[in-house]
Amino acid sequence: MNDLVLHPMKEIRIIISGEHVTFATDLLDRIKATGYTIISNISGKGHHGIHTSHMMFNDMESLVMVITVVPQEKVPPILSGLTPFFNKYPGVMFVSDVAVSRLEYFSGSSPGE
Amino acid sequence: MNDLVLHPMKEIRIIISGEHVTFATDLLDRIKATGYTIISNISGKGHHGIHTSHMMFNDMESLVMVITVVPQEKVPPILSGLTPFFNKYPGVMFVSDVAVSRLEYFSGSSPGE
Amino acid sequence: MNDLVLHPMKEIRIIISGEHVTFATDLLDRIKATGYTIISNISGKGHHGIHTSHMMFNDMESLVMVITVVPQEKVPPILSGLTPFFNKYPGVMFVSDVAVSRLEYFSGSSPGE
Repeated sequence: MNDLVLHPMKEIRIIISGEHVTFATDLLDRIKATGYTIISNISGKGHHGIHTSHMMFNDMESLVMVITVVPQEKVPPILSGLTPFFNKYPGVMFVSDVAVSRLEYFSGSSPGE
Repeated sequence: MNDLVLHPMKEIRIIISGEHVTFATDLLDRIKATGYTIISNISGKGHHGIHTSHMMFNDMESLVMVITVVPQEKVPPILSGLTPFFNKYPGVMFVSDVAVSRLEYFSGSSPGE
Repeated sequence: MNDLVLHPMKEIRIIISGEHVTFATDLLDRIKATGYTIISNISGKGHHGIHTSHMMFNDMESLVMVITVVPQEKVPPILSGLTPFFNKYPGVMFVSDVAVSRLEYFSGSSPGE
């Protein structure tokens, strides 16, 4: 029955150029996100805004989406870690609510790891 | 610090046949969504319902998922724009809550664009 | 106008090894999920937790993400169906809120189907 309980977590999706994927995964390793999923070879356009004169991504550029699920308290360090990167390189980050059944797979960080 | 504020937005995901991708991206351009991401070569089955006798998608057909993030007020025009399309062609649209850190990349539309 | 109403549903995403995809889709067929989308050839690392000594996925293993949208009452049977599988094989499941415009495509099960 316990396996059927769902625990609220935060899902973070980072969309960046494929060449920068290790920046994102290194950051997730450093803040001890317990895992991530990568969807490769996606394409995109924008998101540019009113204050930018250039497209963030060229149409059809090879992008990756890095998806991770973390406890709420790990969202600010991920956001902080990405901010200087996003000031130099194109990319977006989405945060959304998600629930997971096996909490220990997402919240843990091994001692001394 | 300001970069760490998260702004609530709406994420729209449109799943359609690959041959129709420009219909979706043209619609998003027209309502001035500031960008989108496309995941290609996905497959699917359904969603058919009780009132339809045919499968919406054939198993393993080549589909695309078009993802965009927009302010709440752009959801109805996207939905309106897709309705006549969905009356003729298979496809589904999901709307969900998402938060983004750099609001100007998602809400803007350049004057005179 | 009716087409513009959005109905709250649950989105379930299952990430497993590609070799096990039919386990997930058979389960979804059995509980009469009305459809699903599969994103193939994704990669991942983790999610391992404090109580497991092994990585759930090897880095860069070929994974699939199976996405379905169902009414709330179908979440527990999917979770129950996956629990014994997840006790043997690596995999994760995310549940999140989503809204859909055409309810009949997601909640239906044909009589006698």
